[in-house]
Amino acid sequence: MVKINENFLKLQDNYLFSTISKKVQDYQRKNPDKEIIRLGIGDVTCPLPQACIKAMNKAILELSTKEGFKGYGPEQGYDFLREKIVSFDYAKYGVNLDKDEVFVSDGAKCDTGNIQELFDISNKIAITDPVYPVYLDSNVMAGRAGQYNSLTGKYENVVYMPVTSSNNFVPDLLNEKVDLIYLCFPNNPTGTVLTKKQLSEWVNYARKNNSIILFDAAYEAFITEDNVPHSIYEIEGAKDVAIEFRSFSKTAGFTGIRCAYTIVPKELKVNGVSLNKLWHRRQCTKFNGVSYVTQRAAEAIYSEEGQKQIRKNINYYQENARIISDGLKAAGFEIYGGINSPYIWLKINGNMTSWEFFDELLEKVNIVGTPGSGFGPNGEGYFRLTAFGSREDTIKAIDRIKKWKEKRIV
Amino acid sequence: MVKINENFLKLQDNYLFSTISKKVQDYQRKNPDKEIIRLGIGDVTCPLPQACIKAMNKAILELSTKEGFKGYGPEQGYDFLREKIVSFDYAKYGVNLDKDEVFVSDGAKCDTGNIQELFDISNKIAITDPVYPVYLDSNVMAGRAGQYNSLTGKYENVVYMPVTSSNNFVPDLLNEKVDLIYLCFPNNPTGTVLTKKQLSEWVNYARKNNSIILFDAAYEAFITEDNVPHSIYEIEGAKDVAIEFRSFSKTAGFTGIRCAYTIVPKELKVNGVSLNKLWHRRQCTKFNGVSYVTQRAAEAIYSEEGQKQIRKNINYYQENARIISDGLKAAGFEIYGGINSPYIWLKINGNMTSWEFFDELLEKVNIVGTPGSGFGPNGEGYFRLTAFGSREDTIKAIDRIKKWKEKRIV
Repeated sequence: MVKINENFLKLQDNYLFSTISKKVQDYQRKNPDKEIIRLGIGDVTCPLPQACIKAMNKAILELSTKEGFKGYGPEQGYDFLREKIVSFDYAKYGVNLDKDEVFVSDGAKCDTGNIQELFDISNKIAITDPVYPVYLDSNVMAGRAGQYNSLTGKYENVVYMPVTSSNNFVPDLLNEKVDLIYLCFPNNPTGTVLTKKQLSEWVNYARKNNSIILFDAAYEAFITEDNVPHSIYEIEGAKDVAIEFRSFSKTAGFTGIRCAYTIVPKELKVNGVSLNKLWHRRQCTKFNGVSYVTQRAAEAIYSEEGQKQIRKNINYYQENARIISDGLKAAGFEIYGGINSPYIWLKINGNMTSWEFFDELLEKVNIVGTPGSGFGPNGEGYFRLTAFGSREDTIKAIDRIKKWKEKRIV
Repeated sequence: MVKINENFLKLQDNYLFSTISKKVQDYQRKNPDKEIIRLGIGDVTCPLPQACIKAMNKAILELSTKEGFKGYGPEQGYDFLREKIVSFDYAKYGVNLDKDEVFVSDGAKCDTGNIQELFDISNKIAITDPVYPVYLDSNVMAGRAGQYNSLTGKYENVVYMPVTSSNNFVPDLLNEKVDLIYLCFPNNPTGTVLTKKQLSEWVNYARKNNSIILFDAAYEAFITEDNVPHSIYEIEGAKDVAIEFRSFSKTAGFTGIRCAYTIVPKELKVNGVSLNKLWHRRQCTKFNGVSYVTQRAAEAIYSEEGQKQIRKNINYYQENARIISDGLKAAGFEIYGGINSPYIWLKINGNMTSWEFFDELLEKVNIVGTPGSGFGPNGEGYFRLTAFGSREDTIKAIDRIKKWKEKRIV
């Protein structure tokens, strides 16, 4: 008699984006004349850079010929891409990596979801609160999180590290020992960062406690400030204790064509067992590499032309972030993020919940954002706006919010 | 203190293809003038069909414009593709599916590797022997296989179902109860099939014993005989007990651009829990969809032009298979497969092992195949050749084998 993995039943249905979508549809149906602006979802909108388009067209032409055709590629990615990653994304910041430490994949979501397979079920995990849900859910499904407590909104075996305005969004070093620590900086959803010094303290914690840091740097390209590390490996000793996740999704607009990568340093060992080898074996067994066409597109962003083009798109989103941040501040809101990140994290004044604020914003000014409580208990009282909309929409949205705020005393 | 998943250490290093590669390199270095023909690897060589090339070019053009740009797609695949799959790959054979039962993915390897996550660790699994290694290894990694016994070459908790010439490559119905049964037909590596009647018996077994069949139909497009089912759902009652895996890799030459799909029928429930919903949740949490460009290429194979073009390529490989089969038979070899499959499974005469035959073939006629023992203990004494080479190479290879066989009395 087959038995299902009962851990799946412990998952809390995450209705966040479907509830948002339903509310927006309902409102639009009742108010067909209203123009709704969506600043809720973390998905890019600028077209793919021309350098990528050119590279993809070239790759497709190759695949159409007997001589140029490519079948299965290496599971870990083609060397042409891994070598570019090593020199452009790391050597530039003084980090020396070997190309065999780079594992090209079809998404940071997959990698951050799958990485826990390398570890025993008994490991204690720590996540920030609020958090990107994949870290938590993948551990719930594996049986590492234990039972859900609906009163606290937390799983019994998970250590939640609050990141709120009270600690300036820097997770407090833990007094207890944990084994796996998920850190995402620049952070989704709060848009906040850790300085080199702050991240060093976590690396030291991991070294002292034999923990491993799973460092999600998917938003690295949005960093503008000097004291913010682009890679955890800029911190001395991090290679012994950290795995890093990167993505082309937000850097180059690849959310629709799928490419990311994960760094597993050769120094990273647990009781003498190399995690680089374990991840290599995992990927060879359960993954078959990224589309050749996509890998050529990824390679192209490292050309002079490609670098200019992706920088232009990132600048566009960064300028949107500045417009949102400045506008909301001018309107009297307390906001975080937006400087090294495409996310702006707004603190809701008064006693309104995240969902009440969502409804108000939708109905009064026809703007869609994301309620902070959807990312964890400590997201309650906050609201996320994203810089991925068009310039016109962004300006219009902030204008509406300002005018509404003037009329309404909050 | 972090603990790794110790089950990874129970994996047997599979040196099959790396050993082959090393032996071939060594031989070529010592004999630089010899022309080696490779009929070992199961990877396609015909260029991508023009219909796919056209569709990909169009998709890329879309992605290069503000209006046509696509970000995140649905995790389960775009409806345009799921609908085509339902009507072309299933309705045609009298199988009615809903598009929500189709989960588009980046590979059957990923899906057959990940599907076991839905099930409890305590489930008993059965695999054929020889077998495609992913079914076994993914269960070893999850802890379902137990310890490896180096004397038998088997894991203690796995039920091995021999498929050899003794049972005409039809796995005998089990006397014991198992929970999850991996069946791959047309089979990799043996190239053999089950008739509708034979597959019905397994569906009945699963219904009687509350088991689930994980049916890998990646080679379905190579079926030529009428009594061979293209889908397990052609068998009455199979929707209650089976998950089916399909791939565009061999059907349309997609090994380099990555697309496959998995069918999880809504009827399939374990104690009232829908596996369709579990897999949906699994994919939403750990997967982010297939490249839009690749999905458009996949859609294009269902056009009139696309159908003709993929059929032409499949016919080409099938003709290669016929040339290999007829040639080897004429040379006096006992062979299996090759009729509904791109794989030819040769029974080695006398007492030679698979590896000894490999060496002999490499050194005497400069042909590379795959030793059967690499696929499991019951693959010993067999040898796999594939039909994915060029026509010229295939003809030349068979010619060499024939001449060699004439001179050598085996």
